[in-house]
Parts: sequence; C-alpha cells; structure tokens
Amino acid sequence: MRSDGRRSRGAPKIYLAGPEVFLPNAVEIGGWKKDLCRAYGFEGVFPLDEPPGGSGSVADTGREIFDICVSMMDRCDLCVANLTPFRGISVDVGTAVEIGYMYARGKPVFGYSNSADDYKVRLQASEPGDGTMVEDFGFFDNAMCEGVVARSGGVVRHETDHPHQLTDLQGFEACLARAASGQRA
Amino acid sequence: MRSDGRRSRGAPKIYLAGPEVFLPNAVEIGGWKKDLCRAYGFEGVFPLDEPPGGSGSVADTGREIFDICVSMMDRCDLCVANLTPFRGISVDVGTAVEIGYMYARGKPVFGYSNSADDYKVRLQASEPGDGTMVEDFGFFDNAMCEGVVARSGGVVRHETDHPHQLTDLQGFEACLARAASGQRA
Repeated sequence: MRSDGRRSRGAPKIYLAGPEVFLPNAVEIGGWKKDLCRAYGFEGVFPLDEPPGGSGSVADTGREIFDICVSMMDRCDLCVANLTPFRGISVDVGTAVEIGYMYARGKPVFGYSNSADDYKVRLQASEPGDGTMVEDFGFFDNAMCEGVVARSGGVVRHETDHPHQLTDLQGFEACLARAASGQRA
Repeated sequence: MRSDGRRSRGAPKIYLAGPEVFLPNAVEIGGWKKDLCRAYGFEGVFPLDEPPGGSGSVADTGREIFDICVSMMDRCDLCVANLTPFRGISVDVGTAVEIGYMYARGKPVFGYSNSADDYKVRLQASEPGDGTMVEDFGFFDNAMCEGVVARSGGVVRHETDHPHQLTDLQGFEACLARAASGQRA
C-alpha cells in the first residue's frame, strides 16, 4: 500500500480525514471508524488520537494540531476522507487540504460523500446566480477534489438523511472494501 | 526559491491559486496578477493559462483541468493563494486542495484573505450553533489552512468591500513583496 512500494510493518495505516472531528461525539465516531478499519485489515488513525499539549497560547495549540495531523498523515499509507459537505455546499476545507497533501505524497485517497447530488445541484439550490462560473462536470464537488479521489481511490456517493449526514458510515465502509481489494476507480 | 535548494532557470514561478478562476473576467485578473509577479521578479502561472482540449466528455474535461493544474503546480517553485472566502465562510475547496498539495511538495505557500475577520466570527455570523465545535484559535480559517500558510509564507489579511472582495490585489501584492524579500512568517 505504500507509495514507495514497500509494505508497512503490520496493517496498512489509514488516515481518517473528515469534519466529524468537530462533532460532540467525535471520539466515539473515530472509535467506530477504527473498528471498521480493523475488520478490513487496516489500522485507522484518527486526528483526535493525539490531543495537543495545549501549554501555550490558543494559536500555539492550533498550530500544534496542524503539526500532529501532518505527522499522522506522514505515518499513514493511504487516506479515507469524509467528503460530505460541511458548513456549506462543499467539502470541509481542512479535509480538502489533507487530501491534497496525501495525493502529493503519492498515497491513495479514497473518499465518500453522504450527499449524492452533483456539486452543481447544491450550488444552484444555495444561491441564485452570482455571476461566477458554475462547474458542470457531473462531479461531486470542485474539480480539484474530484480529481484527487478519481485518480486515487474513487469517490463513493450515498444519500443520507440530514441528521446522519456527517456520521453515516456506509460510504466509509464501501471505501474500506475498495481499499482492501486494491480496487481503484 | 526551490525546495530542493536549486534555483530554477529564469524567474521563480508562482502558482496563482484562487477562486477568481470562476469569475467572468478571470483571464483579465490572471493578467493583472502576472504583471504584478513580473514587477517583483517572478513569473506567474495562472490555472487558465492552458485551457483543456475538451474533446471528450464533460467529465473528461474536468479531469483534464485537474491534470493541467497538477502539472502547473509541479512546475512552480512557490504558491500565492487567494484564501478569501468563496461560496460560504471558508477558503475555496479547490484552492485548499492546492495549498495542501504544494505544502506536501515542500514549496512555500503564501496566502492572502480579503476578509480580515477570524474564522470564528464568520462562522458565528452565518449560523446559530449547530452543536459542532467552533475552532477558536484566532485563525483566519480552519487550522489546516492556517497551518500551511503559517509554516510557509504566512497569511495576509486585508478587509475589502464586498464587490471587490475576490479581486482586490493589495493582499496579493503584499505576498509578492514577502516572497521577494525571502521573508517567512
């Protein structure tokens, strides 16, 4: 699973990117994800696994969280990202940075969205035309987001009712199944 | 300016990331940015410099745009990103993927936002509490976005009136001045 062709010791490590880290039960969700990873032969690495020390200013703590996440990504062999829209019509921007990072490191990036619609549908539902170009590629989101997952592991779309939209794990499990079988989009 | 310590032939190339590519006058804005780059001793590379061939399906065209942008990023020595909120309260997600990509490649990422507020201020103005955690680090956006620019070139914040919020170039020029002087945050 490693981009350099060597296998990691033990189960391949999956960086579990996604905005569920902002939910009140984030640690619980991370636990569910890690359990599913084990069931598919992987080790899940969740951003909240290593809390920051928090001994400095709040800005220091924020930068420490960034460093921890980068270090975790560097230890992981692949990424499964929750690409469900968050606080708007698009992927969480932190998750977007992370999939760009993992892609640049040559690591497979699998992703799922619990909104099945094309980006264009969400955009047009959210605002009357503001004069900006509406991308119409049939993609789940911006072309850079689609491109990363299309060229790595592929995106799984699965419509989920709003109260469970960030937490439903059917798409996540489908990504694990793809990753386990070595299937690429 | 190159991460590997060698200098490029000619002027260092800057990848000009940002959501202005979606504006009707995107090519004109790209021209202004490239003119400013030259004034500071750089060569600007704008995503629309190489239009896709567009001979296949719309999805093929979208993926070709992705490939072109990745190839441009790989040719560039650093990045200056327009991190102004786009279609919501956060950075354009395509731009977020790109800064993650460039950071992972070891290239300096400078960024500017034409919204001076902290992320927390925009979030709290946009929606009443939905139970998700509100990051309160004093950052301009999500900690992953702040981290990339804080550890590379630093973010320039500059409040700009709404009609010019995506296009004002004072923050962009400040980034060029920093990059030209070799200044890091």
